[in-house]
Amino acid sequence: MPRRSMAHLMSLGSQVAGLTSPHGSLPRLIPTSSRYSSSKPKHGFKPGKIAVVTKTTRYEFEQQRYRYAGLSEEDLKHLLAMKGSSYNGLLERHNIHTNNVDHIVKSLHKEGIDVQVVKRGEYDSDVVQWADAIISAGGDGTMLLVASKVLSKDKPVVGVNTDPERSEGHLCLPVKYTRKFPEALGKLCRGEFRWQWRQRIRLHLEGTGINPTSLDLHEQQLSLEQHSQAHRITTMDNQQKMGILNDSVSKPSLLPIRSLNEIFIGESLSSRASYYEISVDDGPWEKQKSSGLSICTGTGSKAWSYNINKLAEQAVNEILKIGKYQTGLDIPLNRQFIEKVTDEYNESLVFSPEDRRLFFSIREPIVNRVFSSSRQRGFASKVCVRSRCWDACMVVDGGTSFEFNDGAIATISMSEEDQLRTVLLDN
Amino acid sequence: MPRRSMAHLMSLGSQVAGLTSPHGSLPRLIPTSSRYSSSKPKHGFKPGKIAVVTKTTRYEFEQQRYRYAGLSEEDLKHLLAMKGSSYNGLLERHNIHTNNVDHIVKSLHKEGIDVQVVKRGEYDSDVVQWADAIISAGGDGTMLLVASKVLSKDKPVVGVNTDPERSEGHLCLPVKYTRKFPEALGKLCRGEFRWQWRQRIRLHLEGTGINPTSLDLHEQQLSLEQHSQAHRITTMDNQQKMGILNDSVSKPSLLPIRSLNEIFIGESLSSRASYYEISVDDGPWEKQKSSGLSICTGTGSKAWSYNINKLAEQAVNEILKIGKYQTGLDIPLNRQFIEKVTDEYNESLVFSPEDRRLFFSIREPIVNRVFSSSRQRGFASKVCVRSRCWDACMVVDGGTSFEFNDGAIATISMSEEDQLRTVLLDN
Repeated sequence: MPRRSMAHLMSLGSQVAGLTSPHGSLPRLIPTSSRYSSSKPKHGFKPGKIAVVTKTTRYEFEQQRYRYAGLSEEDLKHLLAMKGSSYNGLLERHNIHTNNVDHIVKSLHKEGIDVQVVKRGEYDSDVVQWADAIISAGGDGTMLLVASKVLSKDKPVVGVNTDPERSEGHLCLPVKYTRKFPEALGKLCRGEFRWQWRQRIRLHLEGTGINPTSLDLHEQQLSLEQHSQAHRITTMDNQQKMGILNDSVSKPSLLPIRSLNEIFIGESLSSRASYYEISVDDGPWEKQKSSGLSICTGTGSKAWSYNINKLAEQAVNEILKIGKYQTGLDIPLNRQFIEKVTDEYNESLVFSPEDRRLFFSIREPIVNRVFSSSRQRGFASKVCVRSRCWDACMVVDGGTSFEFNDGAIATISMSEEDQLRTVLLDN
Repeated sequence: MPRRSMAHLMSLGSQVAGLTSPHGSLPRLIPTSSRYSSSKPKHGFKPGKIAVVTKTTRYEFEQQRYRYAGLSEEDLKHLLAMKGSSYNGLLERHNIHTNNVDHIVKSLHKEGIDVQVVKRGEYDSDVVQWADAIISAGGDGTMLLVASKVLSKDKPVVGVNTDPERSEGHLCLPVKYTRKFPEALGKLCRGEFRWQWRQRIRLHLEGTGINPTSLDLHEQQLSLEQHSQAHRITTMDNQQKMGILNDSVSKPSLLPIRSLNEIFIGESLSSRASYYEISVDDGPWEKQKSSGLSICTGTGSKAWSYNINKLAEQAVNEILKIGKYQTGLDIPLNRQFIEKVTDEYNESLVFSPEDRRLFFSIREPIVNRVFSSSRQRGFASKVCVRSRCWDACMVVDGGTSFEFNDGAIATISMSEEDQLRTVLLDN
């Protein structure tokens, strides 16, 4: 057991629920269903086999941890109290979630649908293969994980927010369906819904310094140490399976994962600068030093990428103030106007989930004699990145991590077949 | 030995030189010596005992690594070639550095000064105690480390850039003195210089989840795994020494370190969001979720904090374009004007090294139903932070790292006695 104070064993506050989407998503600034195109189904949708993938609640997570640490349930309660968390509170959220899962499963059974309930840790390509459709029962993080393993655009994925009071659930159905799931099923059956396709990212990896075996960051709640260790252990177990040796140059391999939000590339250690080379749309390679690189989809343009690029009113106020002073023009600087300009700027960062373009953002570029940056962000069809990092990772949707060290080359692109088929139900 | 491909053993490119200051510093946009106050010395400065602290060159670093890995010098050459680096190139930079160190030492000896040459890994409070003044022989990273252990404002620290072609050297003397050190010594002796005091940050740590033993990030070139492991090993070795137990609440302890650039607080894993509470100038505690928190000095306002807050012309152009459209005013949008406004905005982020205020910046704040942010950045006299993190650290000047997990409380402030005494010589 890692030598940590008992106090450390209890932490996270609302993190487990929130951690799955480190940067979550925007509150609904823009009515998504009305703004982006979607299509009416040709007929009703009544799948024969549905897999329900459930999140790990914080209560379950802490239980697993205390069992591992050899603590009793009484110890668990005590430790949680010490950290200002409540055992009863965690249990309550856990029960809310499991009751909502039961509600979903019962509703499905009532319609004669064959159901397989799978914990997120057990969810794999065999489950995807078996199911006609997959329901994510959790929050946005669970939805991201569920979607990541669905490679086909014909297999629908539906997210149900099993704890609306705690989860943002931007990728999930409207919250009313959580306790009225039969209503959702009825609409699906009668074709009273629209299909929405969310364009996703595909990844090719090649070169030295790669490790095609990924790590699930959420399931494992890893410390930095465990993160690197886990990368190596899974490598040793799977090396032959993957047939790729780390110290030989290998041809580009398409990873069996699709990204719904974004790819983040950077040094694993948050205080270390990332060195890499980037080529946008087959342009010239450019050496860069920054805090990392984000490449997002339209769906992801409301998530981490949004947080990287958005401006605070404070900054907009300052820009307009300087503009006013420099020009002598009567540019308004009242709160209302600043808010208006800020909102318009920030909204311009968001684009359609169906857009076939990627959006790359260099986070905190470091410009000096050696490193330059022609464009800090922009749209592209393809982005290639060559790592010059020491101990970096490529993180998919904040949840799945691949080693990406010096010599590795990633090609990040989109293909029409990578779309995720999801369901739009009216509120 | 960590299981890494041989290819991985060779990496970093120019990182070792650059890594010491992950975010380096701005090119000299602002003539520092003329803009900020400094003071004429009352008399010449001729210390009897000088410690010269030297950086670890990349060549030395790779040598240490290959010895550890059991590789021969021939293997080293081969691996470097594979990574596109040059053994001869590294050796050349190493020789340039060591020749410059020899030049400094000879110049000091010629003046009858008692000299102790110390590698950065051996530099400690005993060396500081012994010396009348300390010379940092390396780049900005070495200067940051050297300064961090000097707690008194009476002990001068002078930086000499031992590889001007590769190092930015913003905290060092003008580059001409690297090969003409006797000239610098002469001026010091005759009082033909000015003292400059750089205000620094002091840290108090308390609560559960702290570990007052720090980790030198540069000396160890740690992977994530080694980072956490090292934190724990040093804890076990030093626990009794420090007299602080992790699982008991302890009174605030003033750390034996001062920060010249900034404190960064956040999850160690770059893709994980940081949860914490912050209180500015004894104001109310505010829960926050973000990519981390930076608190910098005037000196540091040109370093990482600058990179976090600066805007690209792209963004400024967009703001002014929106402002123009919204007001109908004839706001210029030509390249020259955008550049002017951008430069003015970015320059406003920089403040005097002698300023006794801290500047805090919340990096990528995540605003949703639960978390809000009243001010994204601003000046303060004191900032308190309570960690709600899983595996976070408090990093001083990008080089020294302290564990800072759930329950830990840091008080970040400045005191007049924390100033660093440095020397200003004319170009």
